[in-house]
Amino acid sequence: MIQPNVPETGVPRVVIVGGGFGGINLAKKLKNAPVQIVMLDRNNYHLFQPLLYQVSTAGLEPDSIAFPLRGIFKSQKNLIFRMAEVTGLRAAENILETGIGELRYDYLILATGSTTNFFGNKLIEEHAIGMKSLIEAVQIRNYVIKQFEESLLLKTEEEIKPKLNFVMVGGGPTGVEMAGAFAELRKYIIPKDYPELPVSLMNIYLIEGSPRLLAGMSELSSEKALKGLQELGVIVMRKTVVKDYDGKILTLSTGEKIESQSLFWSAGVKGVPVDGIAPEIILPNGRILVNEFNQLNGLTNVFAIGDIAQMTDDKHPKGYPMVAQVAIQQGANLANNLKKLLKQQTSLQPFKYNDLGSMATIGRNKAVAEFAGMKLYGYFAWLVWMAVHLMSLLGFRNKLVVFINWFYRYFTFDRGTRIIIKRGAANIVKLRQTVN
Amino acid sequence: MIQPNVPETGVPRVVIVGGGFGGINLAKKLKNAPVQIVMLDRNNYHLFQPLLYQVSTAGLEPDSIAFPLRGIFKSQKNLIFRMAEVTGLRAAENILETGIGELRYDYLILATGSTTNFFGNKLIEEHAIGMKSLIEAVQIRNYVIKQFEESLLLKTEEEIKPKLNFVMVGGGPTGVEMAGAFAELRKYIIPKDYPELPVSLMNIYLIEGSPRLLAGMSELSSEKALKGLQELGVIVMRKTVVKDYDGKILTLSTGEKIESQSLFWSAGVKGVPVDGIAPEIILPNGRILVNEFNQLNGLTNVFAIGDIAQMTDDKHPKGYPMVAQVAIQQGANLANNLKKLLKQQTSLQPFKYNDLGSMATIGRNKAVAEFAGMKLYGYFAWLVWMAVHLMSLLGFRNKLVVFINWFYRYFTFDRGTRIIIKRGAANIVKLRQTVN
Repeated sequence: MIQPNVPETGVPRVVIVGGGFGGINLAKKLKNAPVQIVMLDRNNYHLFQPLLYQVSTAGLEPDSIAFPLRGIFKSQKNLIFRMAEVTGLRAAENILETGIGELRYDYLILATGSTTNFFGNKLIEEHAIGMKSLIEAVQIRNYVIKQFEESLLLKTEEEIKPKLNFVMVGGGPTGVEMAGAFAELRKYIIPKDYPELPVSLMNIYLIEGSPRLLAGMSELSSEKALKGLQELGVIVMRKTVVKDYDGKILTLSTGEKIESQSLFWSAGVKGVPVDGIAPEIILPNGRILVNEFNQLNGLTNVFAIGDIAQMTDDKHPKGYPMVAQVAIQQGANLANNLKKLLKQQTSLQPFKYNDLGSMATIGRNKAVAEFAGMKLYGYFAWLVWMAVHLMSLLGFRNKLVVFINWFYRYFTFDRGTRIIIKRGAANIVKLRQTVN
Repeated sequence: MIQPNVPETGVPRVVIVGGGFGGINLAKKLKNAPVQIVMLDRNNYHLFQPLLYQVSTAGLEPDSIAFPLRGIFKSQKNLIFRMAEVTGLRAAENILETGIGELRYDYLILATGSTTNFFGNKLIEEHAIGMKSLIEAVQIRNYVIKQFEESLLLKTEEEIKPKLNFVMVGGGPTGVEMAGAFAELRKYIIPKDYPELPVSLMNIYLIEGSPRLLAGMSELSSEKALKGLQELGVIVMRKTVVKDYDGKILTLSTGEKIESQSLFWSAGVKGVPVDGIAPEIILPNGRILVNEFNQLNGLTNVFAIGDIAQMTDDKHPKGYPMVAQVAIQQGANLANNLKKLLKQQTSLQPFKYNDLGSMATIGRNKAVAEFAGMKLYGYFAWLVWMAVHLMSLLGFRNKLVVFINWFYRYFTFDRGTRIIIKRGAANIVKLRQTVN
């Protein structure tokens, strides 16, 4: 019989759901606390989401941005990891329901992150591709390369064009970086790999509903990003919304139609709350309302941090941005508060967000970055972007492999990982059934 | 309409089926020949099969042993690549039938390699996992890690044992190296990653039908490999054949039964000949009989090289071994002969195999190697093994990434890539249908 098999050790049990930025930072900060930490995640790895778009565009291997959670915590003796999905919460009994059985907790922290938000448009949801998970990134890579291979087999430009129209929806960092990476592919890789294909048939669209890209940054940065992408030949459409998509034709709010077989969606994210949370604290975007200590309303031992949590203050009436920094800082603050609670101290520290800045890369040698009151553009911002991302990657091996890939790409203009990993053999079907 | 879209250029057309060791070496050697080369492969990458077992055992990322064929040939102007499966041959008309339409050829070279041979045992074929493709390796990695994660959820040793019995069938280099890698996992990784699991429950079996391992090498090397594996705790069974397997219980020719959910099969390979080849030159193992010029019987412009070709001489009445060296050398010899044929010369050079030696690694610091009349064992053989494999890998990036992984593993005893890449999101089902 399957069961969580987590022994009672006599010390308070802290259950952390999710091994993202918030969850792992919280767990690390509790390393020497007198608790038993149980970390649950549906995957066995921490994913460095900021570089996911580089996997999609054949710049990095998937393994280099995923770090096994057991590796992260191998020297942390007070932590137990279980690969499991959470299915429900019975807060009155301090019980978490999971795919591997029920788990009692003394303190529960939901750090489940966010998922792609299609804002209820079922047709788009059915045909567009999200950009949140590792398998999505690998599949995008497979899919994009396949469009080029198949284009070679078509005779007329009318047949080819829909295959080579790539549409990114959402002008946040993910959309901007992905569009830039596609433009680089078009400039440096496609002409070499597919000399038979007129590269002019490939179009890259970036569609954003609001008047500007990178809405979280300054107007100047937005302007620089827009210009940078346009110089790379990206067709940027602002104040434009995708109304409909059937897998072949995209209808825009302007009435315009685009033929495309590839719609990549980063126009929004949402939380996926656990069953059993009081409906009145679940917001329409799926985030869970928490107080300044990240506590769920009416519960003193249940917390939510990171993307899934919505904490408001005067400056952030709609909650903090759904970015890694907020999750990391909330994890740290909550670790301190948990230590106080363990000592029966009631003077908890309210969370204060320290905005360390934000940045986005636009393409080779070009980025926008804002931090410590500075605004940087161009080459230097790009170097900063690389340094910050390299430093943030977990593990020496991953840092080194990513560095080498970037170094190699910089000097050769090549991308090493443009392979299609196909399924095929009959046995794999069986394996897949077992594995999933 | 889908069609190969290969233009007629007035020069003779050489169609090469398969981008393995034989195919790419042949194509490279024809770089300056006055021909149009059309290379077909079902995948868009060359796979460095000798290191596949390291992907299976979380030592290397899949991308580091796969090299995009378009990248390999990007500066070779006389070569066109198409991703396609070959479905039939009409030799009388010089027409190759493929999934993307028919293709005329002047010279045709079949270099399609080999696939796993289950020797007709349907039950084993259904439940065992082959070790020939990149996706199989990734799935083995997923599957193995999942066995450990699931073992944690079971209470009794009786339930756990079948999950942690890993059985390799076939005592050739693949089976030996895989068994050694599993033993290393057990020694260095599992105790750290799964301190809750008694490592004694994990058993590694290597089953070989003949009296010795590494039958292609000397008796002394076989003996060293056997000892090395036994020292690592691998249970090696010789003169033993797997009679049956239902996915749960393995029945051996000795009558013994082993409970195991993981049977990895490298007990044999076979050719998969193309429809349309005269049945009398197809051997029971699927290989195609060729003459000393790699020509198919009765055809002067159709050739087979590498694993798919069976060429016999006095020393090799059953054909040359199905290894990379034979394919590479046959590719080179055939390139020279094709150049002669293009110049209307009829004095073709018969193939002569120059055995450069063979080697297998057994584990950390340990390998067996035989070359240039020397027999090496232990640490030095292991260094030679690493150097030869690194040098043989295509591409600077791959060499570097593999080197770093090995370097990192050597000093940290860690394996960086033990992640489970899962499928899950509904959209992926759709994508998968499109991609496959």
